[in-house]
Parts: sequence; C-alpha cells; structure tokens
Amino acid sequence: MNENDVDNKLAAMAPGHRLARGVGRALTDLGWSCLFEVVLKTGRRVDIMALDEKGRIAVVEIKSSLADFRSDGKWQEYLEFCDLFFFAVPEDFPRDVLPDEPGLIIADRYTAAVIREAPETSLAPARRKALTLRFARTAGQRLLQALDPRGGI
Amino acid sequence: MNENDVDNKLAAMAPGHRLARGVGRALTDLGWSCLFEVVLKTGRRVDIMALDEKGRIAVVEIKSSLADFRSDGKWQEYLEFCDLFFFAVPEDFPRDVLPDEPGLIIADRYTAAVIREAPETSLAPARRKALTLRFARTAGQRLLQALDPRGGI
Repeated sequence: MNENDVDNKLAAMAPGHRLARGVGRALTDLGWSCLFEVVLKTGRRVDIMALDEKGRIAVVEIKSSLADFRSDGKWQEYLEFCDLFFFAVPEDFPRDVLPDEPGLIIADRYTAAVIREAPETSLAPARRKALTLRFARTAGQRLLQALDPRGGI
Repeated sequence: MNENDVDNKLAAMAPGHRLARGVGRALTDLGWSCLFEVVLKTGRRVDIMALDEKGRIAVVEIKSSLADFRSDGKWQEYLEFCDLFFFAVPEDFPRDVLPDEPGLIIADRYTAAVIREAPETSLAPARRKALTLRFARTAGQRLLQALDPRGGI
C-alpha cells in the first residue's frame, strides 16, 4: 500500500476506528497485546482489551466525540472486567466532561499518549482466568480467519 | 482469490504448513482456537497450540514425512506443556513408527481427522496460566500486525 492508499483507507474508517488504530499502536509499543471489540459475558462490547506480560488486563473505551460519550453512560460496568480502565479521546475532546477516576489517553489515527494513568484494581482470579481465556480464543480465531479465510475452497 | 490462486499458494507452501492448514481448520470446527508456531519458554517451538473453551491446551506436532519425524526425537518434552498431545501426519505416513501413546491426526491441506484421541493429563495451574497468557499475547500481537502492518506510515 502506498501513502495515498493508506490515506484513503483511513479516511473511510469510522472516527472511533481511527482512534483505536492509534491506541493499538501506542499500547503495543508500551508492551501490551491488544484486541479490539471484545464481547463480555454480559453482552457488552469493549473497544479495546489489552494484556500485559504480567497478565494485567486493561480496557479502553474510545469516545470520538461528546455525542459518542453522552450516548453511553455505563462505563462503570467495565470496571469489574479489568485491572485498569481508560477513556481514549481525540485531542479536541472537551475533557472536563469526563469523570476524574479513569485513566485518560489522547489519541489520533497514528498514535496515542497516556495522559493520566488508571488507578489499578485487581481482578478476582477466576474472572482474570476467564477473561484471559476469552482474549486468547478470540484472538486465535480471528487470526486464523485472517490467515486462512476459507473462501469455500 | 480464485481457485487457481489458492492452488498456486498451496503448492508454494512447505509440506508441514499445508498440513497445519488442514489441522487448523479441523480443530477450529471441533471448537478449538489454534495458534501456529508458538515458542515455549524452553525455546522449543510447537507447530500448533490450541485452546478449548474449558481452557484445556492441546499441542500438535506435524510430521510431514518419515525424515521429518526422525530428525526430531524430543516429542516427550512437549508433554509438560499441554493437556493433550497429538502427532499430525499425512495419510501415506508410515504410522507404525509413531509412538503409541500420543493422539494421532491424519491431515491434508484441506482438513484433518482425529484417528486416536490423546490421553489427557492435567497441567499445573501456574503452567496453564502462563501458557494461556502466552497464547493470548502472541495471538493478539500477530492479529494487530496483520490488521495494521505499520508500513512506515
């Protein structure tokens, strides 16, 4: 892909997906392994789940705009599914509407920066085990599907 | 990709990779999530590691030929890294040279069949936890690399 192809692809992405790309890159560089759009057993879907080498679990909710933030008031529900919870927003997002407690990431389509660290809680062992297994199986299935899409042949 | 493209791609693959493709498809259909070429902490690399929804870990070693089997005598080393261990071989492989204990899979490039179930051992919890985390992080990193290869842009 040349630079124009990449620009066109980025332009066609939803704003939240562009930010997820930047967050995924930045968290990868910080040693996290990231998986996008992970469905929890509650049926809710987190934007990014990330695992570090110690097995800690971070969840990142991406809010591309104030409207996006206001349409989803249930961020506290994610706290019991991670050790670290972050919001990720674009630079021009009005940050003063965000709650003070979670971590904060400023992102664009290319990268992201952790502006405020998340307070660390500690998952119950059984929950951590179940989430790690869900991450592993989902990532493995998606990777195999990407490598061998089984086009009927 | 049309049928000819797929045939050409398959012809260019190493024999072991063609069999891995068939094994990956068959295990996926049996409810396993598969990851190819996973490096253990010993530095040894297993051909396929698979996770089922209970968190059981299977390892599959692919032997595409007798020479391939004879060049690697250390299959017992894998037993402490899985609950279930299988050899996977092509249909024309001389099966009587294989040890009786492990599970046996017959594979081709399109699919595979479990001919003999593997005896089940049970990993120590700390080992299972470490292997599941390794699977999760490796699969997540490879998937993100596939989705966003970061071509310098």
